[in-house]
Amino acid sequence: KSKCNANNPLSGAALAQLGAQRFYVQPGERRAYGPLGAELKKNLLQQWWASALGCSRERILPIGSPLKLANGGVPELGGELRADLLQGALQQYVPSLDLVGRRLPFGLAESGVCFPASEEALRGVELRCSPVTSAAEVTLASLAWFSSPRTSSQWLDHWTRQRMKWWRRFASTPSDFTSSDVDSKDLKSGTSHGVRILYRFPWGSEPLETLWSLGDTELLRTHQGARTKLQCRDGRRSVVPYVISMSSNMDHGLLAYLSNSLQQVQKVDGKQRLHQRKVLKLHPALAPVKVALDMGRGATVELRQVCEGLLQELQEAGITAWPGYLETAPQSMEQLHTKYDEMGVLFTMVISESTLESGLLHVRSRDTTIRETKHISEVKKFLLKYISAAENI
Amino acid sequence: KSKCNANNPLSGAALAQLGAQRFYVQPGERRAYGPLGAELKKNLLQQWWASALGCSRERILPIGSPLKLANGGVPELGGELRADLLQGALQQYVPSLDLVGRRLPFGLAESGVCFPASEEALRGVELRCSPVTSAAEVTLASLAWFSSPRTSSQWLDHWTRQRMKWWRRFASTPSDFTSSDVDSKDLKSGTSHGVRILYRFPWGSEPLETLWSLGDTELLRTHQGARTKLQCRDGRRSVVPYVISMSSNMDHGLLAYLSNSLQQVQKVDGKQRLHQRKVLKLHPALAPVKVALDMGRGATVELRQVCEGLLQELQEAGITAWPGYLETAPQSMEQLHTKYDEMGVLFTMVISESTLESGLLHVRSRDTTIRETKHISEVKKFLLKYISAAENI
Repeated sequence: KSKCNANNPLSGAALAQLGAQRFYVQPGERRAYGPLGAELKKNLLQQWWASALGCSRERILPIGSPLKLANGGVPELGGELRADLLQGALQQYVPSLDLVGRRLPFGLAESGVCFPASEEALRGVELRCSPVTSAAEVTLASLAWFSSPRTSSQWLDHWTRQRMKWWRRFASTPSDFTSSDVDSKDLKSGTSHGVRILYRFPWGSEPLETLWSLGDTELLRTHQGARTKLQCRDGRRSVVPYVISMSSNMDHGLLAYLSNSLQQVQKVDGKQRLHQRKVLKLHPALAPVKVALDMGRGATVELRQVCEGLLQELQEAGITAWPGYLETAPQSMEQLHTKYDEMGVLFTMVISESTLESGLLHVRSRDTTIRETKHISEVKKFLLKYISAAENI
Repeated sequence: KSKCNANNPLSGAALAQLGAQRFYVQPGERRAYGPLGAELKKNLLQQWWASALGCSRERILPIGSPLKLANGGVPELGGELRADLLQGALQQYVPSLDLVGRRLPFGLAESGVCFPASEEALRGVELRCSPVTSAAEVTLASLAWFSSPRTSSQWLDHWTRQRMKWWRRFASTPSDFTSSDVDSKDLKSGTSHGVRILYRFPWGSEPLETLWSLGDTELLRTHQGARTKLQCRDGRRSVVPYVISMSSNMDHGLLAYLSNSLQQVQKVDGKQRLHQRKVLKLHPALAPVKVALDMGRGATVELRQVCEGLLQELQEAGITAWPGYLETAPQSMEQLHTKYDEMGVLFTMVISESTLESGLLHVRSRDTTIRETKHISEVKKFLLKYISAAENI
C-alpha cells in the first residue's frame, strides 16, 4: 500500500547540482560536459540525424561545411567563425542540384559547432543554469529546405509539426515543449514567417529551435542574384526555390531533456514513512547508460568474470553498460539505486552467487522500481527489445 | 570467358576528379564535402566511436570539451581555438576520477574540429589533392589513455596494434596502411616514444594517426604539479598515471579510404573488346550509399509507388538508399552502373513491370557485378545481413 507522487519540474539549482554530481557536466567547470553529458549529446544528435535522413519521406542530403567562412560564405583561412549553418547550406545548394536532378523539394542537413553572434541563440540559459552551455559556442543541428515558392508556406507548417513531434517524442512531459509564431515586427527583411519551439524551464521559456521562412532573398544574395544557376523544376516551370531554415540548439536541447526528465518521486511505505528520491527519467533512446552491472555477495573472482563477459556482450551489441562491479568503495543497494536513478540508468542488474549456480540475475527497472529475475542468456535480447520498443512509440 | 584486372592505386588527379564528380567533395570548392563525403565522414566517425566505446574491453568514457581554450586548458570566451583534443582530456582527467573510482587504466575519448598550428597535421595532403582537407580545420578523433607508469609501454604496443587493426579493417589493400616509430630526435621533451600510422597515397606516405607516450609531464603541467589530486590506485600503490595520446585525422582518413578503394577494373568481353571501369570499393560499413533504387520500364505511377515504399522501408531500417527513380534524364543501364560504381554504391536494385506481377526485382552487386533476382520482401533482411557480416569480418 504505497503511494507515489511525481513533482515536476525541480528548480534550476537542483538540476545544476545533480548535473554536476552525476557526471553530466564537469563540476566546477562552466563550459564542459562530463562523460554522461557527452554521451547524452551524442545520442540526441544521433536521433536528430535519424529523423533527418532515416525516418523522413523527404529527400534530405547531409553536407559538411567549414567552420571558418569569409564574406559570401566562401571558406577561407582568415575567415570568421560561422554563426550558424545556413550560409554553408546556401553555398552548397548549387553543387547539390546535379545530385537531385534539379527537382524540388529537397533539404540539406548539417550539425556542428557554431559561434552565434546574436543574443538569440544564447539568451537566458547561460545566465540562469550556467554549467551546460558555453557563451561562445553551441552545437547546432540545421536543415535548409528548398521548395517551390508555391508550397513554401505549407512546408513551414509541415516542418513545424514534424519538429514539434520530434522534440516531444523524447519528453516525459511533452506539454513543456511549445511552439509560437515570431512577431512580424521581429522578422528580418525577406523573412515572411518565423516559428520558435520553446521549452518551459523552471526559470522560464527558452527557445530550442527556430524555423524561418526566408523566401528567396538569402539564396539570391549568397549567389549574387544569379537566378539562372539557382533554378529548379517545379512541374513544368522553372523557379528559384524558397528556403525554410530550421536550426536546433542541441546544448539547450540537452538541458531541456535533463530538466524535463528530472523528477522528485515520493513514496509512503507500509509504516507511513515518507521516502523521497530523485529520478532522471530520460527517454530510453537518450539515456547515456542503459544498464549498470553490479556484484552481489559471493566468490569475487568468478563473479567479476561473469560481469566482464556480460559487459562485453552488451557493449558489442551497442548497449552502453556501466561497470559498477569495478567500484571498490562499499555501497548499500539503496545507495546504488539512488546513484543510478540520478544518473538516469534504465536498469540495474546484480550478479550474485546464485547467478553462478542457476544463471539467474536480478534486474531492477528505473521507472517501475520493480525487481525481476532473468536468465543471463536473455538479458541482451531483453534490453534491445526494450530500447527499440521505446524508440518506436 | 572474361578477364578482370584491378589496377590500384589510381593517381591523385583521378581521385580528385572522381571525388568532385561523384559528390564526395564540392566541385570548385577547396574545403567542403559533398553529400557523399559528409556521409562517409559520419560513417568513419561512427566506426571510430564504436571501436572506442563499444567493442573495446577497456574502460573508455566520452567527453566533450570546448573549442576555445585559454592558457592551461581553461575554457574561455576569448581563448584560442584548440589545436588538438589532448588539453581537454588532461583537463577532464581529474573530474573523471570519481567516476572510475580512481582505478587505472582508463581512457577519455573525444572527436571534433581542431585548428592545428603545427605543419604536422596538415602536411602534404592539402597541397597535392586539395579538395578534401582544409588548411585551417581538421576533424580529429582522440583517445587519451591513463595507465600505471609500470605498464605504459605495454599499453602503447597494445594500442598501436589495435589502431592498426582498426585502420586496416576497412581497407581494400591493408598493406597500404603502415606504422613507423617516430625518430627519437623528433620527440618533444617528456615524450618517450611516438608512433605514426601512415597511408601510402599515390603521391607518397602521409600520417593518419599519431600515438605519443607522454609520461606524466603534460598531465602534471596541466594541473600545476598538484600530484595528490592526480593520484590513482595501482594495486596497493598510489601513482600519477602515464598518458598515451592517440589522435586520428579523420579528413586524411576519409581521403585514404577513397584512395584505397578506388580501383580501375579491366574486363575483356567475349568479342575481345576491352572494357574499363572505375569502382569505388568502399567497405560496406563506410559506403555512404548502400543501395540505389531505380525503375525499369512499365507503368510509371505504380512503379514509383513501389520504389517509394521500399525506400522508406530501407531508410527506417537505417540503410541509406538512393532514390535513383527520381532521376528524370534518361540513362542506360550501363550509364547507371558506371555512375553508381564510381559513387561506391553497394547494390543497385531495379523495380520493373515484373516486380508488380511477381514481387521480384533485379539486384546487382558493385563488387561482383553479378545480377540476382530477389523477392522485394527479402531485400531489407538481405542488406542488413550483408552489412553486418562485413562489419564483423
